[in-house]
Amino acid sequence: MGLIVHKYGGTSMGSTERIKNVAKRVAKWHDAGKRIIVVPSAMSGETNRLIALAQEIMPQPDQRELDMITSTGEQVSIGLLSMALMALGKEAISFTGWQVPVLTDSSHTRARIQSIDAKRVMSALDEGKVVIIAGFQGIDDKGDITTLGRGGSDTSAVAIAAAMKADECLIYTDVDGVYTTDPRVVSEARRLKKITFEEMLEMASQGSKVLQTRSVEFSGNYQVPTRVLSSLTDPLMPLEEEAVSGTLITFEEDAEMEQTVISGIAFSRDEAKIMVIGVPDKPGIAFKILGAIADANIEVDMIIQNQSVAGITDFTFTVPRADYERAIAVLNTKVKGEINAKDIVGDNRVSKVSAIGVGMRSHVGVASKMFETLYQEGINILMISTSEIKISILIDEKYTELAVRALHKAFELDKV
Amino acid sequence: MGLIVHKYGGTSMGSTERIKNVAKRVAKWHDAGKRIIVVPSAMSGETNRLIALAQEIMPQPDQRELDMITSTGEQVSIGLLSMALMALGKEAISFTGWQVPVLTDSSHTRARIQSIDAKRVMSALDEGKVVIIAGFQGIDDKGDITTLGRGGSDTSAVAIAAAMKADECLIYTDVDGVYTTDPRVVSEARRLKKITFEEMLEMASQGSKVLQTRSVEFSGNYQVPTRVLSSLTDPLMPLEEEAVSGTLITFEEDAEMEQTVISGIAFSRDEAKIMVIGVPDKPGIAFKILGAIADANIEVDMIIQNQSVAGITDFTFTVPRADYERAIAVLNTKVKGEINAKDIVGDNRVSKVSAIGVGMRSHVGVASKMFETLYQEGINILMISTSEIKISILIDEKYTELAVRALHKAFELDKV
Repeated sequence: MGLIVHKYGGTSMGSTERIKNVAKRVAKWHDAGKRIIVVPSAMSGETNRLIALAQEIMPQPDQRELDMITSTGEQVSIGLLSMALMALGKEAISFTGWQVPVLTDSSHTRARIQSIDAKRVMSALDEGKVVIIAGFQGIDDKGDITTLGRGGSDTSAVAIAAAMKADECLIYTDVDGVYTTDPRVVSEARRLKKITFEEMLEMASQGSKVLQTRSVEFSGNYQVPTRVLSSLTDPLMPLEEEAVSGTLITFEEDAEMEQTVISGIAFSRDEAKIMVIGVPDKPGIAFKILGAIADANIEVDMIIQNQSVAGITDFTFTVPRADYERAIAVLNTKVKGEINAKDIVGDNRVSKVSAIGVGMRSHVGVASKMFETLYQEGINILMISTSEIKISILIDEKYTELAVRALHKAFELDKV
Repeated sequence: MGLIVHKYGGTSMGSTERIKNVAKRVAKWHDAGKRIIVVPSAMSGETNRLIALAQEIMPQPDQRELDMITSTGEQVSIGLLSMALMALGKEAISFTGWQVPVLTDSSHTRARIQSIDAKRVMSALDEGKVVIIAGFQGIDDKGDITTLGRGGSDTSAVAIAAAMKADECLIYTDVDGVYTTDPRVVSEARRLKKITFEEMLEMASQGSKVLQTRSVEFSGNYQVPTRVLSSLTDPLMPLEEEAVSGTLITFEEDAEMEQTVISGIAFSRDEAKIMVIGVPDKPGIAFKILGAIADANIEVDMIIQNQSVAGITDFTFTVPRADYERAIAVLNTKVKGEINAKDIVGDNRVSKVSAIGVGMRSHVGVASKMFETLYQEGINILMISTSEIKISILIDEKYTELAVRALHKAFELDKV
């Protein structure tokens, strides 16, 4: 008898009416003889409400206490969903993160899952119950409540599916799958029936918001077949149809998939570029610059260092847009003088566009086609970074839609 | 260095501004060198909001899942109060019921505390931290969250004070102490500086809503000096003044107190009277009637059985008004036929008025003075029940205020 993990986001859990719909869908799967674990998010708006309350008290909330507060959103959800299933005549039981327990490290508000104890959950499943587990949360070895960061319920669901050796993890969301690019930008964007784990990982980390990057990592590390599908369909639609809908994240590159070079175009406006100008080109400079940024807990994405001229070079990198001002301040106060840089300049109106596909490995000319397409549209490339299965370029933000549409067409993603 | 437990109700925790005021008050006590544990309730309205959500899903909510949901109200409160203390520069840490842990039985929504582990709390106090513990909640031996029932935070506070061997438990509330009777009914009502534990227990169980009955039981069983005082005063008022304000619940009947015969008049409109008419006066009848009521989980308070005439008698008792209809139905369907009763009649417009005082023990004539006073006001007594330190009478509800005022005056409670 198959074990399936369902995950529902905040929108799907947004009202008691919607929770009843989730229960109908879950009951349908249980009726079909599946063992079901459900991982819901907090009701939409609830996490923000709780954070706002905390910030009224303490503008920079203490992280342990913030986790104490925000973890209640999911705790309410699991109780409500469990009751909604009981109201349909199902046996159900809810567990918080600490009741499972889902053991994490102690990095409050962005903890990482270390292990999941399957015992209590398995025993409830054996009794025929639908098991509801709070997403987004865990417990550390001190017995304190932790949370996994925004979107952490996806990670919870995939990690639980891995720990329980589930047959599939179904991520129900308000879109019906993973698209070749954002359909709001390119109307010809197509839903992918399958995508490899590596491509999905790049899509997520390059700006596609369908799945949280860390949940994709989990899915890959533990080889959990994961499907992204819509929670907006009729909850009583035929199960055979629902079971093959959406986009499946797979671990094999099958024959069908090898035919395409590029699977999708991702983009992110959450970018800012910083240039440290006129620094001596000698060992230790990159470390001094990026070390100070890392100490300030700011993540760096793309990095380039120009060819040096007369022993002097420029050093350029990107940071999340929200950290831009802080990064500039850190460089001016802690770095500029020490490394004797001429100037610190930046631009927070840039965006990153990425072409992603495992087919890239065996095809030459992907990069040149990308650059040519952008050249023809008159779009200047500010930075480039590549990996085995993706090419990312940084451009002026105002060209974002133009670049995405042109690349989507150039790589024939609108064609099946 | 003294250990003090503070308890704050939902009104005191009603907004982030009020929580900041609570923090100021707590910080003042900590500054004075006290070790402080704070037990807050949920923000006012929050528990009702959560119950309403649950009932939208399941009109008779599953009790385990309801506890899962309602316990989050206090969990949010402790996080917010902990942060408010940090914002004042104090070290603070919050614990849920299961983190302490506060071990209870498994009677969800009305659990009883069995034991409290002092270890983690004591260690945080030793580090100089203010410790905030969620009221109203605990954990059972299966690892499930339980709650103690309405007003359970009072019980939590007193039980924690007992377990931690605190010097005093301060119950901060929206009244400034225990009064000789409800000041809204009798304007001459006086605040008592002291009240014995036994009197307080009778006051609480006879209708005074200042403290939950179970919390008074705990206070008595573990001899925890407990003080009821106002949270509406200036949080920065001098500590020496605040420390002796309100009403202290004591365990000795000191000289001062023996002078008064009656300490207070309590009353409750939450009463209904039921008569089983024309039953054979033989052994087992009372059991058959009250057994059926107990099986329906309805509490019985006053009980009388009339003198039998020709082997036939009437049996009368009172139940909480909310259970009246259900009790009548139980008797009609399950009892009437079996015991061959002539009729089941009742009245849910009755109230109970009680005169309470340890001085009653050594004074004759308290009952006769009470009956005479009511006779002079033309109030008919429907039932009487007595204990060593209280006399309760059941009367027509419309005479409640009249009876309370007359008795307050007759026993000279308006005079210091």
